[in-house]
Amino acid sequence: MYLWKTMEKAFKNLIKSEFPYLSTAKLLIAVSGGLDSVVLVHLCKSAKMEFSIAHCNFNLRGEESDADESFVMDLGDALDVEVFTENFDTEAYAQDAKVSIQMAARDLRYNWFNELSAALNFDYILTAHHANDNLETFLINLIRGTGLDGLTGIRTENEKIIRPLIKFSRKEIESYAREKNIPWREDSSNASPKYLRNKIRLEVIPIMEEINSQLLEGFAQTQSHLNESLNLVEDYIGLLYSEIVSKDAHGYKLNIEILEKIPNTKAVLYQLLRSFGFTEWDDIHGLLKAQPGKMVFSATHRLIKDRNFLLLTEIPSEKNNKIYKILEGDDIVMLPIGTFVFEEVTEILEKGTHCIYVAQETLKYPLTLRKWKEGDIFHPFGMKGKKKISDFFKDKKLSLPEKENCWLLCSQDKILWVVNHRADARFAIKDPSNKILKITYSV
Amino acid sequence: MYLWKTMEKAFKNLIKSEFPYLSTAKLLIAVSGGLDSVVLVHLCKSAKMEFSIAHCNFNLRGEESDADESFVMDLGDALDVEVFTENFDTEAYAQDAKVSIQMAARDLRYNWFNELSAALNFDYILTAHHANDNLETFLINLIRGTGLDGLTGIRTENEKIIRPLIKFSRKEIESYAREKNIPWREDSSNASPKYLRNKIRLEVIPIMEEINSQLLEGFAQTQSHLNESLNLVEDYIGLLYSEIVSKDAHGYKLNIEILEKIPNTKAVLYQLLRSFGFTEWDDIHGLLKAQPGKMVFSATHRLIKDRNFLLLTEIPSEKNNKIYKILEGDDIVMLPIGTFVFEEVTEILEKGTHCIYVAQETLKYPLTLRKWKEGDIFHPFGMKGKKKISDFFKDKKLSLPEKENCWLLCSQDKILWVVNHRADARFAIKDPSNKILKITYSV
Repeated sequence: MYLWKTMEKAFKNLIKSEFPYLSTAKLLIAVSGGLDSVVLVHLCKSAKMEFSIAHCNFNLRGEESDADESFVMDLGDALDVEVFTENFDTEAYAQDAKVSIQMAARDLRYNWFNELSAALNFDYILTAHHANDNLETFLINLIRGTGLDGLTGIRTENEKIIRPLIKFSRKEIESYAREKNIPWREDSSNASPKYLRNKIRLEVIPIMEEINSQLLEGFAQTQSHLNESLNLVEDYIGLLYSEIVSKDAHGYKLNIEILEKIPNTKAVLYQLLRSFGFTEWDDIHGLLKAQPGKMVFSATHRLIKDRNFLLLTEIPSEKNNKIYKILEGDDIVMLPIGTFVFEEVTEILEKGTHCIYVAQETLKYPLTLRKWKEGDIFHPFGMKGKKKISDFFKDKKLSLPEKENCWLLCSQDKILWVVNHRADARFAIKDPSNKILKITYSV
Repeated sequence: MYLWKTMEKAFKNLIKSEFPYLSTAKLLIAVSGGLDSVVLVHLCKSAKMEFSIAHCNFNLRGEESDADESFVMDLGDALDVEVFTENFDTEAYAQDAKVSIQMAARDLRYNWFNELSAALNFDYILTAHHANDNLETFLINLIRGTGLDGLTGIRTENEKIIRPLIKFSRKEIESYAREKNIPWREDSSNASPKYLRNKIRLEVIPIMEEINSQLLEGFAQTQSHLNESLNLVEDYIGLLYSEIVSKDAHGYKLNIEILEKIPNTKAVLYQLLRSFGFTEWDDIHGLLKAQPGKMVFSATHRLIKDRNFLLLTEIPSEKNNKIYKILEGDDIVMLPIGTFVFEEVTEILEKGTHCIYVAQETLKYPLTLRKWKEGDIFHPFGMKGKKKISDFFKDKKLSLPEKENCWLLCSQDKILWVVNHRADARFAIKDPSNKILKITYSV
């Protein structure tokens, strides 16, 4: 039997067993004009699938790029398949977005595919990645330095993108095209070992294949094992997450007691926190035994050692000098931080930390709302004398994010209310003749 | 500063921080005479550690092997260090043990090291494995096909073996020797790319280093990440093990309900059962939904689908045709399968499945003990008529291992007792004139 027949049969069986939903779907195939994508088109045609073609002209190789485009148009004509093309100024995009040319092409390509499939109701986008691509990516990541997730191959986050050739080797794909006399466009840059991927394809993998002629099959197995291990790591972390992590208004809290009880704590911290951009994992591990208040920063987040928890919060972007004013006569004041209601009442009824009662004549307008600063003092209601706000916070065992998120309602330079925590005694109702003002705060 | 000074300092610091216990211990260094082990000896000397040298002459390269031995003896003389040498007939050992020459050398080497250190009280054995060895092993396993554990580097099971050079590269080690004019023996087979490891060393790794000059440092990081992931997988499996697996007299039981509740069941089954030599993981996964009684085999074990459990047992090595004879007058019969006690009694007192009372005159000697076979029938005590043993087992919901381990006590061709389960009515006491024989079984 000819290889091309074997291959068309294998492709048909693969679609039937692994992607049965493709045979009745409306598909868009990404076609560069190169060997892989042209073969994918022919295999899909042989399997009588319903598809259109999308070709990106990235305008990176002048006339060569335009010739690729014409080639793909002709391929569409020959097979009686609709072709969509789009021209991109890839270099300009890369400069604007400050990304590499490769990243720019990738972004442009997938954005356009998504637009196309949304506008024209394509169910799936097919790309021609094959087994060698996965091995090449594995080796690139290995050479650069990576972790398990860098060795497990493409894990599509976008479920609309399907890679039906991922089990076929470059060699099989090329033999198919040669046997069937299918022409394709050779990208001249593919032959240059100056590009990392080409160097690996042309110099490293051939030696590995000399050693093991079944390299690709073995590698597919290896990668599937690695994928399973990664799945188990993720399952385990998912399990631990629900035990270790809780969330409150200020951010995430990681339970130190549990972290110290489990094995391999540092590796677990890495898995839990990796997406927040931290890099100093020894320092993070060290926080468990550090003094409360110690912190480790990433570009966007910080991890704070509190008494029984590590607190993960965004680095406060707002400077601590935002001040809101409240004028005399304001009765409902809606602010980004919550709502204050001022009402004259005749008796003190409801009690709680979310409202206070003050003697109206003691206030000096405008009132202000601000964050605390070092040196702030007030006269806590129910106590004799004054107290530093910082000591008050300490006695109440507030965490740093709680302190940072605490507002002070002030009457001129005097603190009237540590909002949601304690009123100031200097403004309290002391005489039946006082006009009673009730101030309520709600988020 | 000279590289050799930097390196001796780095080595000293490494010993201080990672292997502090080595500085006061009695050490044995494995020395082939090659670059790596000779450098290790010099570094240990420079760090003023207390050590002796052990050299294996595997007699695989004729005069070259003997010259290696003399070289190591001279090295010991020069440094005033005791040298132990041993000659091995490696080829003969390999033939006898049916292993490769490499495996034979490995076995001989470590066996002798262990003997030496037991006899002469060495605390640790030092070997000269370095960073490149780990990368080479990684690539060998990758090329052959592997899983996460094949990519995580040497994990020493023997805590007495220490590899203090594992963070140094071959290049550093060679530069150190050249700068200090330290001679070493070049193994001529190291230059031949016909050996897999040499091919990787000489052809694959240099290209990877062209791409990334920091390859080894990056790789050490990569491997430490992979190790952490493997640790997490093992922690997770340890956690699941205690939930899923229980043990009884017949083997291990895996709880199907829990297996079906967790994600990635197939990968978990692989991790739980890999050490038992199974290969058909799809079939094993399929057992969860299979009919009770279905089995999957490895060379040594089988996994049986029972009602609520997968049962893992060794494949019974004994053929099911073992028969024990019990003669008239035997009163205590000790067998590999347990002990039978025969005693005449005057009344029926104790009851239970572990003993029966029979009418002595109904027995025909010798009695026999055998396993059940298809077609066996008996007359269950307490029931009318006869029953197939297989149906009796089925009603009692015995698992296959329980059936296989069940013994039948027979009087000629009649079953007298399904041991530990049910007596036969035909031998029961029916008349006060019967002589009562009590038969007790205990393991």
